[in-house]
Parts: sequence; C-alpha cells; structure tokens
Amino acid sequence: MARIVMKFGGTSVGDIARIKNVARKVKVEVERGNQVAVTVSAMSGVTNQLVEYCTQVAPLHDAREYDTVVATGEQVTSGLLAIALQELGVNARSWQGWQIPVITDDAHGKARIMEIKGAELIRRMEQGEVPVVAGFQGVGPDNRTATLGRGGSDTTAVALAAALKADRCDIYTDVDGVYTTDPRIVKSAKKLEKVTYEEMLEMASLGTKVLQTRSVEMAMKHRVRVQVLSSFSEAPGTLVCDEDEIVEKELVSGIAYSRDEAKITLVSVSDQPGVAAGIFGPLADANINVDMIVQNVSQDGTTDITFTVGKADLGRALKVIKDKLHVPYKTIRSDKNVVKVSVIGVGMRSHAGVAQTMFKTLADKGINIQVISTSEIKVSVLIAEDYTELAVRALHTAYGLDAA
Amino acid sequence: MARIVMKFGGTSVGDIARIKNVARKVKVEVERGNQVAVTVSAMSGVTNQLVEYCTQVAPLHDAREYDTVVATGEQVTSGLLAIALQELGVNARSWQGWQIPVITDDAHGKARIMEIKGAELIRRMEQGEVPVVAGFQGVGPDNRTATLGRGGSDTTAVALAAALKADRCDIYTDVDGVYTTDPRIVKSAKKLEKVTYEEMLEMASLGTKVLQTRSVEMAMKHRVRVQVLSSFSEAPGTLVCDEDEIVEKELVSGIAYSRDEAKITLVSVSDQPGVAAGIFGPLADANINVDMIVQNVSQDGTTDITFTVGKADLGRALKVIKDKLHVPYKTIRSDKNVVKVSVIGVGMRSHAGVAQTMFKTLADKGINIQVISTSEIKVSVLIAEDYTELAVRALHTAYGLDAA
Repeated sequence: MARIVMKFGGTSVGDIARIKNVARKVKVEVERGNQVAVTVSAMSGVTNQLVEYCTQVAPLHDAREYDTVVATGEQVTSGLLAIALQELGVNARSWQGWQIPVITDDAHGKARIMEIKGAELIRRMEQGEVPVVAGFQGVGPDNRTATLGRGGSDTTAVALAAALKADRCDIYTDVDGVYTTDPRIVKSAKKLEKVTYEEMLEMASLGTKVLQTRSVEMAMKHRVRVQVLSSFSEAPGTLVCDEDEIVEKELVSGIAYSRDEAKITLVSVSDQPGVAAGIFGPLADANINVDMIVQNVSQDGTTDITFTVGKADLGRALKVIKDKLHVPYKTIRSDKNVVKVSVIGVGMRSHAGVAQTMFKTLADKGINIQVISTSEIKVSVLIAEDYTELAVRALHTAYGLDAA
Repeated sequence: MARIVMKFGGTSVGDIARIKNVARKVKVEVERGNQVAVTVSAMSGVTNQLVEYCTQVAPLHDAREYDTVVATGEQVTSGLLAIALQELGVNARSWQGWQIPVITDDAHGKARIMEIKGAELIRRMEQGEVPVVAGFQGVGPDNRTATLGRGGSDTTAVALAAALKADRCDIYTDVDGVYTTDPRIVKSAKKLEKVTYEEMLEMASLGTKVLQTRSVEMAMKHRVRVQVLSSFSEAPGTLVCDEDEIVEKELVSGIAYSRDEAKITLVSVSDQPGVAAGIFGPLADANINVDMIVQNVSQDGTTDITFTVGKADLGRALKVIKDKLHVPYKTIRSDKNVVKVSVIGVGMRSHAGVAQTMFKTLADKGINIQVISTSEIKVSVLIAEDYTELAVRALHTAYGLDAA
C-alpha cells in the first residue's frame, strides 16, 4: 500500500471522454490498494478563454477578480472528475482551495502556497475516499480565491503530496517523461528513467517545460518523489528524485535549449567600480530578469558588457538603458536571433572536461560561442539561433546520449 | 438616497459588451447617490453547457458535484462585472456564496436560502463599495457550494434585498416588464405599472416566466418591492408590490396560459370513500404534482375523475396508475393537447361575475371547457390547445385589457 497524489494536466482532461479515461486510471491505482488523492487542471483552452474575458473587459484588471474568474476552470474539472469516479464506483469528492484550505500568500495572480491543511483529507483517504482537488488555486489571507500563476497545478500536486506525506506524486501530462533532449530535434533522444531535482530544475528553467519550475523547487525542498508520465499510454515515466536514489549517474543527463533569450551588448562602457551596479540596478528596478552576463577584458579604460534578457523584455530593457542609465557608454547592440544551449548533469560535479567537450564539439561544427555561463551541474552557451538543431544534435551524440 | 439591489440575468450579461453595458447601468445608480449591490446570473448558455457536461459524464450524478460545476458560471460573471465596474471608476468587488456567506439548506441542486449574513456588505456599501454577488449559489451546512435551482438568481436578488434592507430590488431581464398577457399573442397587450405579489405569483406559476416563483414568494414574505425592467432599454418597468401600494385596482390584471399541462381521466372509478386518496397518494409518493382535479357526479355507483399533471410527468403518471393503483376503474384516457388559460386579478375578491364573463366569452367563441379550477384571485380553465390564441385574445378584450 502506498499513498499517491495523481495530477492530470489540461490536455489529459481536455474533454468528457478524457475525463472518463482519467477516472479509469485513478481507479486502477485505488484497486491496487493505494490511498489516492487527485488534482486537476482546467480543461485545455478554458483558462486561456477566461484570461481573454478579463483582458477584454479591461486590459489591466484587479488580480483578485482575475483569480475569481480563472479559478473556475479547475473547479469545473474537479467536480466532473468526482462524478466520473463515482460512476465507476470509486468513493470520491471534489475540494476547492477554500475548503481544504490551501492557504496562500496575498500575491493574487501568482500566489505561493504557504500551507495545506491535510489532516481531514488524510482521514478520509484512510477511509477509502479519493479527494479530487482543484489545482492552481488556494485561498489568501483576505479569504478570497488566489491562483498560483500559469502551470500552478503542478505546484498544487507537489504541495499536496508533501502535506499528505505521499510516497509519490505522479504528474500525468501529454509527454511520457523527461528526455535527454527534445525528441522533435533528436529522433534518438532517450527517456530518462530517473533524474535528480537539481537537473530537472535546470531543464525546467531552460525551456524543457515538462514541469513548472516552482513545483520542482518545492519537490526538492520537501523531498517529494515526482513521476512524470503520459495519461495517454501505459509506459513508465521519469522519476524526479534525490541523487541518492540514482545508482548509476550519467556524466551528462540531457541537452536543453531555450529560444526565449535576447542578447544586449553595451559597447565601450567606462571601466570603473560600480559600473555593473549602475547597469543592472535600473533593470532590476524595472523587474527585468537578467540571465547570462559577460564582461570583456578592459581596453583603454573601457569595456564591453554583454548580457541576456527574456526575448519578451528586450524592448523594455533597451528603453530602460536609454532612459535610466547614468553609466557612460558608446553604443548599444541587441540581437534576438540567439539560443541558449545547455549541457546538464549532476555527474559533472566530479568530472572535469565536460565543458571542454562542449566547446570542442561546437567548434568542430563551426559554431561560434557568443556567451558562456556555468553552474555546478550545467554549462550554457549562447549561439546564433540558426544553429540550434545542429548544436543540440552534435552535443547529444558527443555525450553518448543517442539511443542504441 | 436609496439602497437598491440590481439583478442582471443571463442575456443581460451574455457577452463582454453586455457586461460593460451593465456596468454603465450600475454606475448611473451609484452616481444618483444610491447604495447599490448587484447580483448576476451566468452568461447565457454557460449554465446549460455545464449541466450538459455533468450529464455527459454520468446521466445520474451527485448533486453536490453538480453544484460545484454549475456554480462557476455566476462566479465568472461576478468577477468580470467587478472588473468592468472598476474600469469605470466604481469601487466594486465580487462575492461568492461561501464568502458572504449565503447560507442554504442541504438540498443540493435545489437548495433554499436560510440566511444571508448582510452586515459586512452593508458596512462596505455605506463606505461606497458595490458588492457584486454571484447569484444562484450559496454554501450548505456541509461547507460546500449549493445552487438554488434554475432561475435561482432571482431568489438571490430578493433574499439579498431583504438581508440588506434594500428599498427596492430591480430585476433586469430581456423583457421590459409584466404584461396583461403574452404580447406575442395579443399585440395590444399593455405593460402593467404595478402588480401585487399575489397576482405575480399566479402569473409566475402559470407560465408567464418573468420571475421565478420562489423569488416572488420570498418577496411577498419579506415585503421586498421588486421592479422588473429591461437591461436593453431605459423604459420604466413593472413594480411588484404590496396591494396597499396600488391605488386603482383593476378587476382583472392579466390573462395567463400554460401549455405544460396534460390531462388524465380515470373512467368508471368505483365511487366510495377513500377513492381520491387511493389515486392521488401513489402519485404524490412518486413526486408527481397534480394540479386541477374534477370529479363528476356519480352514476350507477361509479364516477369519472379527471386531473392534470405536468406534461413531462405524463408517462410516469400513467405508469404509476397502471402499476400502483388499488382502486378499481374501467379505463384511462390521457390528452397532451390541452392548455390551461387563467384570468388573474386581486380585484375579483370583491367583485362577482368574473368567472361568468370568462365562461360566456369562451362559449361565444365555441370553445369547450374541459376542467375548471378557481382560487381567490384566479379562474383557470383547461381547453383544447388549438384554441389557445383565440381564447387568450377573446378574454383580453372581454376584460377591457386591450390598449387604447
């Protein structure tokens, strides 16, 4: 007997037939003798429609009212799945954020879960009832519904698993696991059996959007074992877990890429103390996230500073630089046609040469590296966007990730 | 300064443009210096869609889950209208049943409002805030959302007006008031300036579905002045009020009709004590509502009993009679092609001859009366459905209701 949280995303509950399919999957786990709690997203397309309504009424709108409107998508799915489960003879009931309660902070529209009161749900699960929890929502200190931001149902699932002391959190989605890289680019990409929280976190933040970043952070913090698997197949998925659970660690687990970056270069900035703060302070004040930063060796008392921001923020970032910057510089250059390619693996902590293999592989293909940044378990480079597929395929082969 | 509850039905909030139109109407009342609370239905079509989802998952389904699903329609509209009001500079916020709370009994799917805790809303209205209350929903003793049954938003509005001690409850709908009869049948039908609760109740239960019956009962009980008016025009509506407020009482206020009836005749029932109980007991046990009843004069120790049931219940009623009836009878006849036509008016309490005028008018047109029933303020007859329009027009003229 295990205690399991099962989470189903928007495509998994996209229509009535799929909701019935989800109910059958839940019933299988119940019949195995497991205690099961379920959490669901809105039917695919519904949240977008509700957001669109809010925007049509007023482009800028009260986040509390937005939450009231968009949280209904998950409320509908929770009720429908409870009905579908009952129809199969499974004892089930729906729960909204305010009923459990799922207590959040007051940051409406992108709230964080502070606590889930799990005692009543545990009591009922022990009596054989299946709670069907509306994902993506909780109740704030103002006693109003608060939503967790897009993709927040993953976070609900992991937080629920932590609160219920579940043995596993199964995230059902439209892909059947985490791959060594994007299978649309590399046909021989392999599904990973296991991946560490740290690696998953790097992959999630680098555009491999299988899980919401915040849900992985929460899983890591509470040591919740998360399994990613498809609701449309019976194939085993990928387990996101602690490093200790992975006996054979690969040097490199995967190759990720992100097209969401844009590059900005400030040419001939006067090289003096406080320059970096003078540039990045105003950007931070404008809520613009800066990712990779490179400062060239100083020449003639000036230096070039290159950094990346989200592609969507580029226009705003250039405006902040032009309007707010007190640091003298000669000119600005920007480039949207860039991609960040990353090699990720906890194994590289204990092995040298990983970065060197990356640089050599790219050089052999004639790919110019514009910016480099590294962390303990990741090496990222910025290259011209046209080379994305070439670079990803070459690196996938170079690190021995191609399926046999 | 007055305190007003404004209620907008599904067609009035049917799309984003209409929601904005509603916001403008609310703003006008606020700018007149009134304290305003608003309650809204779901956007037209939404509730039907949600009910359809439930039925597709399981034809018979848990009423608590049904409530969870269908209550979302009003939740969406309340949030959107609050945004629209804020956009016009009106201080507004949405309220769900569980937040106020609107306390109901536990009859999920057709719950009754037990109490609305109005103190916090009054406090905020006195500070200039406009509460936008999701109609049709409350919270049951099980701390779960409960809905009031179809048309329940009218009841929410009236109950809210009672709880807030409002001076008036304005029900905005797609008709601009209560007419002397159906204007689709009689072009010269007149809009009534005022109508009593009692008359409105008879009209509501007789198929003139301007207001939900329960909302009129509640208005009568709490003496809430209800105004019915159109959200698509500026014309004054009809005030539903106490008899004392109506100075010039008409003998007859209106002619109503209902095609929802079906007639059943039990031929040659043995005429002995307990026969009526023996027939109508089993029907009541099966939750079948019996309306008009006529028993003919006994001949040879047998009698014919005729009564009407809802058209939708006819098949079930015939089955109950065949399976459950211990009273001996010769044969059953049934007829779906009937209509109930009624003449309504509080004035008839103090005037004789109203029924006689009805019978004579119908006789002059060669219309055969099958069943008659009367109350203090109403005379109803059952006639063949083909004569509906002819009968309604003739009666409308006979009682002097045609517009000059």
